[in-house]
Amino acid sequence: MWRYPGDRSADYTKLDHWIELARLFERGRFDAMFIADLVGYFDVYGGNVDSALRTASQLPINDPTTLVSAMAAATHDLGFGVTAGVFYEHPYTFARRMSSLDHITNGRVGWNVVTGYLPSALRNMGQQDIPHDKRYDYADEYIEVLYKLWEGSWEDDAVVRDKAHDVYADPAKVHPINHHGEFFDVPGIHLCEPSPQRTPVIFQAGGSPRGIRFAAENAEAIFVTGPTPELVAPTVRQIRDSLEAAGRGRYDARIFMMLTAITANTEQEAWDKYHDYERYASTEGALTLYSGWIGTDLSKYDLDQPLDDIESNAIQSTAANMQKVTGDDGRRWTVRDIAIRRAIGGNSPVVVGSGEQVADELQRIVELTDVDGFNLAYVTNPGTFEDIIDYVVPILQERGVYQTEYAPGTLRNKLFGAGDHLKPTHPGYRYKVSK
Amino acid sequence: MWRYPGDRSADYTKLDHWIELARLFERGRFDAMFIADLVGYFDVYGGNVDSALRTASQLPINDPTTLVSAMAAATHDLGFGVTAGVFYEHPYTFARRMSSLDHITNGRVGWNVVTGYLPSALRNMGQQDIPHDKRYDYADEYIEVLYKLWEGSWEDDAVVRDKAHDVYADPAKVHPINHHGEFFDVPGIHLCEPSPQRTPVIFQAGGSPRGIRFAAENAEAIFVTGPTPELVAPTVRQIRDSLEAAGRGRYDARIFMMLTAITANTEQEAWDKYHDYERYASTEGALTLYSGWIGTDLSKYDLDQPLDDIESNAIQSTAANMQKVTGDDGRRWTVRDIAIRRAIGGNSPVVVGSGEQVADELQRIVELTDVDGFNLAYVTNPGTFEDIIDYVVPILQERGVYQTEYAPGTLRNKLFGAGDHLKPTHPGYRYKVSK
Repeated sequence: MWRYPGDRSADYTKLDHWIELARLFERGRFDAMFIADLVGYFDVYGGNVDSALRTASQLPINDPTTLVSAMAAATHDLGFGVTAGVFYEHPYTFARRMSSLDHITNGRVGWNVVTGYLPSALRNMGQQDIPHDKRYDYADEYIEVLYKLWEGSWEDDAVVRDKAHDVYADPAKVHPINHHGEFFDVPGIHLCEPSPQRTPVIFQAGGSPRGIRFAAENAEAIFVTGPTPELVAPTVRQIRDSLEAAGRGRYDARIFMMLTAITANTEQEAWDKYHDYERYASTEGALTLYSGWIGTDLSKYDLDQPLDDIESNAIQSTAANMQKVTGDDGRRWTVRDIAIRRAIGGNSPVVVGSGEQVADELQRIVELTDVDGFNLAYVTNPGTFEDIIDYVVPILQERGVYQTEYAPGTLRNKLFGAGDHLKPTHPGYRYKVSK
Repeated sequence: MWRYPGDRSADYTKLDHWIELARLFERGRFDAMFIADLVGYFDVYGGNVDSALRTASQLPINDPTTLVSAMAAATHDLGFGVTAGVFYEHPYTFARRMSSLDHITNGRVGWNVVTGYLPSALRNMGQQDIPHDKRYDYADEYIEVLYKLWEGSWEDDAVVRDKAHDVYADPAKVHPINHHGEFFDVPGIHLCEPSPQRTPVIFQAGGSPRGIRFAAENAEAIFVTGPTPELVAPTVRQIRDSLEAAGRGRYDARIFMMLTAITANTEQEAWDKYHDYERYASTEGALTLYSGWIGTDLSKYDLDQPLDDIESNAIQSTAANMQKVTGDDGRRWTVRDIAIRRAIGGNSPVVVGSGEQVADELQRIVELTDVDGFNLAYVTNPGTFEDIIDYVVPILQERGVYQTEYAPGTLRNKLFGAGDHLKPTHPGYRYKVSK
C-alpha cells in the first residue's frame, strides 16, 4: 500500500519515519512495536523475484536490528519486538547483538524467533535445505545456547565496578558455558555483562504442532492468526494447554491475535476508507506473498479463475474460510477475491467501523477467544495506527480495559508485572547461574 | 581508565553516553567516530580471561552496529566507522546490515574491515584456526561478494516508485550476482535497494605486507600506528606506493595516524593531567592487552623484571622503541615501564602540552609523515576528546588547517569531495552495474 496518499512505507530507509512511528505508538500506549523480517524473497509467483520487486512485497528489506537504538532514544516505555531467524547467524554473535539491544533500550527488547526460512535465503547463504523436524532440533539447540549465554555465564552480581580495588567484574562470577551439542560448540563466556532482562522477551508465532510445542516451551508472547475469532479460539486453548504441558502457567505467555482495524469518525466513513483502500490494493503484490506462502504459482491462473477448479489444499481451505467468514455459500470465489482479501488484512479478521464499534468488537473477541491482546496489522502506515490511536484507544481507556500509563520497568515487567527476568517456570530458567 | 573521576567508559551500555559523545564529536568537526570491536577476549595473560574481566580490558563488549542509528538521529554530519571482522558473519546478511546502516545514516557509514581474529572467538563459533595467508584469500572473496551485492545487483535507477503503474522497482534493473567461489556461493540479488554510498567507506588497519596489500586494494581510509612519527613516515610512503601499485592514486586512501593528545590551558596543567592519569593507569589491564597482542604471558614476570632478560622479539622491539622515543640509552626498561607506557597511548605517540603546543606538533607530524589526519585515541572518555576540541581544534581552525564546517553529502564525499560512490580507480568499481 505504499502508493496510498500519505502512506510512508516507502520512507522505510529514513530514520525520522521510524522515530515518529515509535512516538506515535508510545502515545497510543502500545506495548511494543513488532518489526517483521525476512532474509530471502518470494519467488514462487511467476517463478522469479520480479513481482516481489515490482510490488515491493517484503523486498527490498533492511535489517530491523539497526533501527532500534534511534527509536529507543526517542521513547521511554515502548518495547521493540525484533524478528530474527535461527538459520542466519551463529548464536554466539546473535546473543551479543540481543544483549546489546537490551542494554541500550534499558530492557525493552523482545526477540521474535523465526524457525522457518525461505529457500532463496538458504541458497544465498550456501546452505542445504533442512528437513522440517530437523529445523526444530536446530532451533531447540540454538535457543539453548542463547539461554546458557544470557542466563548461565555472568552471575547477577558479577559486575562490581569496585574502583578502589581496580575490579570491574569479578572473574569468579563469570562462567564458561561449556556447550557441546549436535550443531554448536560454545565453550566460553558470554561477551556481554547481564542486561536488564538478560534474556529478551521471547516472541513466537509457530502454527504447526511442533511449532506450538516450541512456543509453549520458550515463548512469552505468542502471535496467533486466523480468519475469524471463532477459528482462533481453539488455537488459543490449545496453546494454553501446551503451556501447562510444558510445566508453565496457562497465562505465562501473552497471546496476541493478528487483526486489522479500519476506523474513522463514523461507520460510514470507515467503510468509505475501506473501499478507498481496495482501489489501491495490489492484487499482484498479494498473490506474490500468498503464492510464496502456499508454494503454488498463482500467476498461472486468470484472476477470474474460480478457486474450486484449482487442486491445492491450501487454496481449498482458504476458499472454505472465506465462505465461513462471509457466510456467502452460493458464491464461487476467484483468484481475484483471494488477492483483494489478502491485500487488506492478510489471513486475519478485518474490523471496519466507528471507534465505538471497533472497541466493542475487540472486547467481544477477547471474551470469545481468551487472547490477551492484538497484533495490529496495518493497511496504510502510519494511517491505520493513527486511526486506532485516535478513535479506538480513548474509548477502551475510558472503559478501563486498556492501559492509560505504562507499567514501570522492563518490557517483561510491563507484560507480566513479575520482575525483569525469566520466571522460575520458564524452561530457560534452569540455565540461570544466579537464582 | 574507567576508574578516573568523570570518565564515562563504564556507561557504555547507556544510549545517552553515545549520543552525547556523537554530539561532542560533531561540535569538534571530527570526520567520524571510529568504533572498535572484538569478538572474543584476551586470555593469554595468566592463561585465562580473569584479568580481562577484572580490568574491563575490551571485555565486556557490546555490538557496535546497534549504536549507530541513535547517534545518527542526534547528528547531521558525523560519520560512523564501524568495525566488523570477516570471520563472524555470512557476507549475505552482513551486506544487508551495512546497507541498512548506510540508508538510515544518509550515507554516513564506514566499515573498518578486520581480517584477523582472536582464537577465543573462533573457538566459540565452532571454527578451526585459519592459516594467516588463507585468511586474506578468505577476506578477498568476502569483500568481493560484498562489492557484487553493493555495486552489482541493483542499478542506480532500479527503484522507480512509479505509483501510476504500481511499480516500486523495475525487475529488469535488479540482477542476481551469480557468485560461485572457493568459500561462498551467492547466486541471488541483494536484499536492499541502493543506499546513498552503496559501498560504505572502507576503513582498514592491516600492518603485515599482505595486510597492506589488502588495504591498498580496498581501503579508502587507513589507520597507521607507530611509536613515533619518524617510524610512521616510511609506512605512509609504503602505503601510498602500494595504492599506486594497485592502480589507484597516492591519495585515494586517507591515512590516519593513531595519536594520543593530552592538553589543557597550559603546558604545566597538561603534564599535571598526564601524571594524574598515570596514577589511575591499570598495569594489569595494559599487560592483559599487550600479552594478547604478542602472544606472551607477561604475568609470569615480576613488574620490576628488566626487559632485556625476556626472550621475545616483540618485547625486544618494544624496548628498543621506548629507547628511541625517550632517547634514554642507559635505562634498563622493565615490565612495569611497558605497562604504564601502554596504558596511556598504547603503541602511539603521546603529545602533552598546551593547545598551541599540541597544534604545533600535529602540524609538524602531518608535514613529516604525509598523513591526512589522526585517529585520536583517548585516555579518559569523554575528557580527552573535550580537551582536544576545546584547546586544540580552535587553534587549528584559526590557522586554516582544520574544517570549520563539514563538506556536504555522504561520508565519502566529505572525505574526498568526489561524489558519493566508489571512484573508478577503486577495485570495487569493476563490479558496478551502473557506471
